[in-house]
Amino acid sequence: MKAAIFKGKGKIEVTDIPKPETKDPTDAVVRVVLACVCGSDLWYFRGISPHPESTIGHEFIGVVESVGSDVKDISVGDFVIAPFAYSDGTCPHCEAGFQTACTHGGFFGMGSGDDGGQSEYVRVPQADGTLFKVPGSDFSEDMLASFLALSDVMGTGYHAAVSAEVEEGDTVAVVGDGAVGLSGVLSAKLLGASRIIVLGSTHENRHDLAKEFGATDIISVRGDEAVAKLMELTDGIGADAVLECVGTKEANDTAFSIARPGALVGRVGVPHHVEIPAEATFFRNVGMKGGPAPVRAYIQKLFDAVVRGDITPGDVFDFKTDLDNIQEAYEMMDQRKAIKSLLRVSTI
Amino acid sequence: MKAAIFKGKGKIEVTDIPKPETKDPTDAVVRVVLACVCGSDLWYFRGISPHPESTIGHEFIGVVESVGSDVKDISVGDFVIAPFAYSDGTCPHCEAGFQTACTHGGFFGMGSGDDGGQSEYVRVPQADGTLFKVPGSDFSEDMLASFLALSDVMGTGYHAAVSAEVEEGDTVAVVGDGAVGLSGVLSAKLLGASRIIVLGSTHENRHDLAKEFGATDIISVRGDEAVAKLMELTDGIGADAVLECVGTKEANDTAFSIARPGALVGRVGVPHHVEIPAEATFFRNVGMKGGPAPVRAYIQKLFDAVVRGDITPGDVFDFKTDLDNIQEAYEMMDQRKAIKSLLRVSTI
Repeated sequence: MKAAIFKGKGKIEVTDIPKPETKDPTDAVVRVVLACVCGSDLWYFRGISPHPESTIGHEFIGVVESVGSDVKDISVGDFVIAPFAYSDGTCPHCEAGFQTACTHGGFFGMGSGDDGGQSEYVRVPQADGTLFKVPGSDFSEDMLASFLALSDVMGTGYHAAVSAEVEEGDTVAVVGDGAVGLSGVLSAKLLGASRIIVLGSTHENRHDLAKEFGATDIISVRGDEAVAKLMELTDGIGADAVLECVGTKEANDTAFSIARPGALVGRVGVPHHVEIPAEATFFRNVGMKGGPAPVRAYIQKLFDAVVRGDITPGDVFDFKTDLDNIQEAYEMMDQRKAIKSLLRVSTI
Repeated sequence: MKAAIFKGKGKIEVTDIPKPETKDPTDAVVRVVLACVCGSDLWYFRGISPHPESTIGHEFIGVVESVGSDVKDISVGDFVIAPFAYSDGTCPHCEAGFQTACTHGGFFGMGSGDDGGQSEYVRVPQADGTLFKVPGSDFSEDMLASFLALSDVMGTGYHAAVSAEVEEGDTVAVVGDGAVGLSGVLSAKLLGASRIIVLGSTHENRHDLAKEFGATDIISVRGDEAVAKLMELTDGIGADAVLECVGTKEANDTAFSIARPGALVGRVGVPHHVEIPAEATFFRNVGMKGGPAPVRAYIQKLFDAVVRGDITPGDVFDFKTDLDNIQEAYEMMDQRKAIKSLLRVSTI
């Protein structure tokens, strides 16, 4: 089968490798229909984080090709959404709704050689707990793109909003206008925020999509200037809830500074050299929650919202190509020419 | 009037100073009935934090002696509980339940010379927002001690439990067995915790009181050993909610280590040289909340619980003396011979 292989900084190659098979009786193998590139994939693409020369990618939807002998709820032919982390669905952490801490869990595309999502086929451990079975298979291209977004980016934005405890009528600040930040805007809107202030880049296309998703204000300056602007917009009070969707030190510093006393920062950006100010947060009663999104916990709710037409998270994909052109898919995101790149791999 | 004055490291002196008067029309002056010494008072007593040579103390109950012209809800003769922070009760932060961030607020006993609680009289700014009027005045000594505890320590323990989002049936870990930690135990119990594990000292009297308050398990080892013990007690899962009631680096490290994935650390110990691990907390979805307790927000609820006999927070006072012996009251706590010292100042 064809699979994207990381070949070192700045280089992704599509190679022929053996098609994966079930290894454990709880495994399934999924034929990928759509996959995509994550902002977190850019960390190794840019040479910032290490990654073995192996299969990559952790976002995909597809059709079940085979199942192991212990798989009960998932069958060959099922059309499924895979969250970026696999989980058994039954351990105490899964039962508490934190599938990304599953005692038998893990993450796709970390270098095992057979579970990268940017491939024609993927081995899915803990298939029963992991895969979400989509009812039906006759969907528009746009609908499929939105389903693909549920594998990570939309669930991650939603986790930021849930972690920040967004409530009806809140003034919500979203730090970051990448695909996760934009999904955070959709999520804040879905949870009833009445005002959504995005702190992001100077890219007009991102502003336009943010507004389409429900943003009421855009701040495109940074650092202290951004903090001052937000305080001005909120009459000196600060945001009722803050979604940190970047992960850099600067983004976190801003996020913790704009939270009003008693507010929470919902963190989903993987922290890189972040320092959380223990005293400054304490004296203002500012808290934090968040981490790797337990996307599996949110798929049903977000799927229903997509089908109802309440959210269109697939709109974050503004570059669409196929697996053979994956190098370009990465480059478009690396150079900020695309918000998020979608890969068509096969048809349902 | 008599007032305790901080005279430098290790020395408190009772001196005659002018009786305070109302300065602003929103002020009241309260004649102190009972006061006490806070664990946070030990920071300057021990020479760790600075404090001017001035009046001290921020926990007191008493009788209103005079009121300014704008005070409407509080009258001369009212028997009142004062939270350790004053607040107007009407600003956006007060309305959100975070009175310790009041835009017209502040803390008692920071060195103004007329608002220290360890005095015969105290000037109370923002009297209407600050003071809780106690219905009636005929109470037992024990009941009065419990009311005094509502001025800080019990409300602070409760804030830890509320911040950690303790729920019915939870396994709660309380880091610290000082007066705040013990109040945290009472609070966890009040919120329905089914198991309460205290991580504390080797003092038997504290263990006894913790158990009386509802603790089910006591861990008296520290650091990694304490973490291992808690994980053993919780079948490797960790605590559903963690109350950090100390404020040292070691206590915080332990608190963040024993939280299960998705759990919150409720912080009320004033942080001293604390580092919050940005990545380790992120990858386990461990969060935090808390800060200076908005005690004013909790007084009514906790007062009702005291009157009903559900909680007896005054039991933390195991050394009782009068204002003249305040030096001993501090020393007993400094030397860990007392959990918390109460000062009888006048009678209702």
